[in-house]
Amino acid sequence: MKSYIAEKLETFKKNNKNRARLLINCDDQPGIVATVSQFLYDHQANILESNQYSTDPNGGGEFFIRIEFEIEDLKNQVNQLEQDFEEIKDQFQLEATFKYVDQIKKVAIFVSKEPHCLLELLWEWQSGDLMADISLVISNHDTSREFVEPLGIPYYHIPANKDIRKQVEEEQIALLKEHEIDVIVLARYMQILTPHFVETFKNKIINIHHSFLPAFIGAKPYERAYQRGVKLIGATSHYVTNDLDEGPIIEQDISRVDHRDNAEAMKKIGQSVERSVLARAVKWQLDDRIIVYGNKTIVF
Amino acid sequence: MKSYIAEKLETFKKNNKNRARLLINCDDQPGIVATVSQFLYDHQANILESNQYSTDPNGGGEFFIRIEFEIEDLKNQVNQLEQDFEEIKDQFQLEATFKYVDQIKKVAIFVSKEPHCLLELLWEWQSGDLMADISLVISNHDTSREFVEPLGIPYYHIPANKDIRKQVEEEQIALLKEHEIDVIVLARYMQILTPHFVETFKNKIINIHHSFLPAFIGAKPYERAYQRGVKLIGATSHYVTNDLDEGPIIEQDISRVDHRDNAEAMKKIGQSVERSVLARAVKWQLDDRIIVYGNKTIVF
Amino acid sequence: MKSYIAEKLETFKKNNKNRARLLINCDDQPGIVATVSQFLYDHQANILESNQYSTDPNGGGEFFIRIEFEIEDLKNQVNQLEQDFEEIKDQFQLEATFKYVDQIKKVAIFVSKEPHCLLELLWEWQSGDLMADISLVISNHDTSREFVEPLGIPYYHIPANKDIRKQVEEEQIALLKEHEIDVIVLARYMQILTPHFVETFKNKIINIHHSFLPAFIGAKPYERAYQRGVKLIGATSHYVTNDLDEGPIIEQDISRVDHRDNAEAMKKIGQSVERSVLARAVKWQLDDRIIVYGNKTIVF
Amino acid sequence: MKSYIAEKLETFKKNNKNRARLLINCDDQPGIVATVSQFLYDHQANILESNQYSTDPNGGGEFFIRIEFEIEDLKNQVNQLEQDFEEIKDQFQLEATFKYVDQIKKVAIFVSKEPHCLLELLWEWQSGDLMADISLVISNHDTSREFVEPLGIPYYHIPANKDIRKQVEEEQIALLKEHEIDVIVLARYMQILTPHFVETFKNKIINIHHSFLPAFIGAKPYERAYQRGVKLIGATSHYVTNDLDEGPIIEQDISRVDHRDNAEAMKKIGQSVERSVLARAVKWQLDDRIIVYGNKTIVF
Repeated sequence: MKSYIAEKLETFKKNNKNRARLLINCDDQPGIVATVSQFLYDHQANILESNQYSTDPNGGGEFFIRIEFEIEDLKNQVNQLEQDFEEIKDQFQLEATFKYVDQIKKVAIFVSKEPHCLLELLWEWQSGDLMADISLVISNHDTSREFVEPLGIPYYHIPANKDIRKQVEEEQIALLKEHEIDVIVLARYMQILTPHFVETFKNKIINIHHSFLPAFIGAKPYERAYQRGVKLIGATSHYVTNDLDEGPIIEQDISRVDHRDNAEAMKKIGQSVERSVLARAVKWQLDDRIIVYGNKTIVF
Repeated sequence: MKSYIAEKLETFKKNNKNRARLLINCDDQPGIVATVSQFLYDHQANILESNQYSTDPNGGGEFFIRIEFEIEDLKNQVNQLEQDFEEIKDQFQLEATFKYVDQIKKVAIFVSKEPHCLLELLWEWQSGDLMADISLVISNHDTSREFVEPLGIPYYHIPANKDIRKQVEEEQIALLKEHEIDVIVLARYMQILTPHFVETFKNKIINIHHSFLPAFIGAKPYERAYQRGVKLIGATSHYVTNDLDEGPIIEQDISRVDHRDNAEAMKKIGQSVERSVLARAVKWQLDDRIIVYGNKTIVF
Repeated sequence: MKSYIAEKLETFKKNNKNRARLLINCDDQPGIVATVSQFLYDHQANILESNQYSTDPNGGGEFFIRIEFEIEDLKNQVNQLEQDFEEIKDQFQLEATFKYVDQIKKVAIFVSKEPHCLLELLWEWQSGDLMADISLVISNHDTSREFVEPLGIPYYHIPANKDIRKQVEEEQIALLKEHEIDVIVLARYMQILTPHFVETFKNKIINIHHSFLPAFIGAKPYERAYQRGVKLIGATSHYVTNDLDEGPIIEQDISRVDHRDNAEAMKKIGQSVERSVLARAVKWQLDDRIIVYGNKTIVF
Repeated sequence: MKSYIAEKLETFKKNNKNRARLLINCDDQPGIVATVSQFLYDHQANILESNQYSTDPNGGGEFFIRIEFEIEDLKNQVNQLEQDFEEIKDQFQLEATFKYVDQIKKVAIFVSKEPHCLLELLWEWQSGDLMADISLVISNHDTSREFVEPLGIPYYHIPANKDIRKQVEEEQIALLKEHEIDVIVLARYMQILTPHFVETFKNKIINIHHSFLPAFIGAKPYERAYQRGVKLIGATSHYVTNDLDEGPIIEQDISRVDHRDNAEAMKKIGQSVERSVLARAVKWQLDDRIIVYGNKTIVF
């Protein structure tokens, strides 16, 4: 990793060494907020941000909360904190996770030929807007190597097609495990993943699809958008599941087009939307802002 | 019609008595722009706005142009102008129409129960932003009568369902012909039209669909958008053809939603998008800005 | 008031008879959220929405929270609820208000010649999107009477100019007090208000200014925007203070313009922005979503 | 210059060797469009795009037109074409320029400490969206060198402050003349330029200002935006004149902020707007789409 990026990450870790996030989901029931607030107060936590949502405001639904907080000398409090919280977890039957902000997430980027989404992520990373350890880039082409290696990131060229999918994925999974990857970003990676791969990294694979889903599922969305004569084109970032382009949507955006834009022009315009939609989704993932619930996401 | 609206229309007609639009489409071929420009120059036309588009900028495609112009004492020049233009039409094999701005278009609005799109059109009309003669409103419910009649517009309550479709449409067509209607706006009219009706008013029927087509064709788009967990909802205005929600798209727009918005909230948010998308489409139709070409529109 | 609007308001009141909002601001200090959550839990409140903000997340700033909740049989609990809360108010030195959703706010609209903002508010009101009692309209012109009276709203034509300002305002204030007005909306009212008037209705007067403030403070913003050659025009809704166009901003939005748009066209485009910006601000005011803090607003 | 970028530029030049643009402005007068259209037709030009604008559609104003066209074997026709056009120039007293698309423009980028706008331009350039020869980068700091030199662009570190302004500018002007620079982009260059410098490169210097002008002219716009409590922040790209932030505006855009965003957060959000606004302005400059007229721009 380039020294100026490593330096930014170090500063970030130091500045956030006392910062944590608590993510909870459970059956909605009275008293959760009061209990959790009291718990954090008792542990001298300073709440920086708090978001909650209930699927049914009248009760009986699912309840979600994300609290970002700071505790003095957090490193030495963590064990006690998590241990004390076990009681509340049991009492309310919570699914709950503590996340620590200085534990920088390890990211792998997959890319095929078109580099624009990869470049956007690298750009945001260089600018200090994506606080991650981009541990490796995997591509079925060799063409993006020259953007990646100068930044000190290893680039793995693993040719792929559907006949050798199994062995390709074994190689990929080995690399991902070796690097202890937390998040896989498909930055316009044009290969289908097997159910085995998807299962191995459940809710950890973020894809960008170049249409506003559910319109234009599958191949060649810009060509089909042009054929249909739409006045808006879009992009969708979603978690990968086994149903093509059907996973939980994280973020979408659109751009206006008109009759002068042919499929080629739409593709150009769309790339800019793809870039920003994917970058936002990845950022939210790094910030632990996304909770998957059924086939939807809650983005706090 | 209310007196203050009638007055606005009269002023508009007077101010635009010398203003016309020439709309052309034809095979792209050299010399058209030069010839038409020369023709208008020779007839002392002052060009106010000119837009052109060719499906293939390298030639061999279809060519479209819309020119808005003024000619002193137009009323007395019209016959000569149109007659002189016949030669050019023949020479280049043009499809061409002259439109005269002071010939206010007659509009019929169809509505079912939800009045928001109807109200938007009436509002724009009262504000002087929709220079049309809203000649009648037809509804399969009686509920919107109280918005319509105080403005001096006749309101026809014609109950409808699929069993009596033929006779209902006969009654509707009779009214539309009697009023010499130029444009039919389906402002959330929830009945299917027969091919006979559609054919009778080809490219004259503008519908608003409450999704960003081609996503969520058909019934209950907001419910389905909610089920899919989309982050954007939209609306689409299009010409009605015999394929449900498949006609040429005129305009689309979207609004952002998030996990807190259920189907009911999406519907509320969406209504605002529907209103503005439909109003824009109708305005462009009145201004002769839309050319239908295959299953697409050129909007100048 | 027209019967169908009165009916909507009645239904709304009935549906929300158990719903309340608690708005708090105070010095940021540990334990507030825990204490208030516990208080509401102890009073069997079901929390529907909760938003909080602190000017300094690291402590020592000002803290704000808005909680919307329901309590079974609220009417008979109110006294006890408010009385019990006094202790917490004292303990944390809170500024706190309970608002009850079925206490529909009384609104007065002021308008001069241009009716577009007035019409938008009346439209939203008819559509059921503005749950208010629009008690009266006051204008220095008689031109909007015909939009207002058919809806059953009294219209007061009070000619005004700077020479008779004092007596005009006395007449206005008398009317506003007689109608027990909660919110005054200046829907393009082109008269300056005196400090006395502003003081009488502090943080209750919402104005729409036709520029993105602080650009183009004062008269003729569209003309000046055109002269400057801007590519965006905007509108700003803000509370009225004694400094012209300097009050706390509630909402702003913009629309794109280009070189073809002269001042007249900008005005037309801008009116649409003014309408939606003002309508949003008024809606938030009715929903008790706005807290004024210094010269800024927190909009929850 | 990196080989893959050089290759893209070569391909672009080859693909556009027959493509030219004709830009005209003059007093509005009858017959210009007809005459110019006929001229291009007579010279076998295929018109790809044509845009026109008149400051006063009723005549008597200023007239502008930009025509993009192709002529077979353009290289060998250029002399005759320009020579033949002299007659029309004289006849209508036109100010007219032919631009040839394969004459790639030479660009110099000036930057101070914050690299985000520089990085965006380099990014667009690498992606093939900015068809320019970025000939050099000049900075009063050495910090951006590591982004620039790996791309094969010379980086000149010229420390600057107001005491040594004259000698600094002499050094800069020498470099710019040596490289025959066509466009100077101030990508967050925080030094004032002298009238001599501005005059030397009139209408060739594009700046990005980090506010929606004319709001927050001068220093620290984000801090001032935060103090004022605005709900939108923006950025403005404009030509540099001797009046600080008063030059002709090319492009503006905004992003929404709320009460949670302090000056630091606004700066972060704003940087993204600055990037895209500046990139659009530079792209239009390279495409010869901008005509300066008085203190405004026409962007075709």
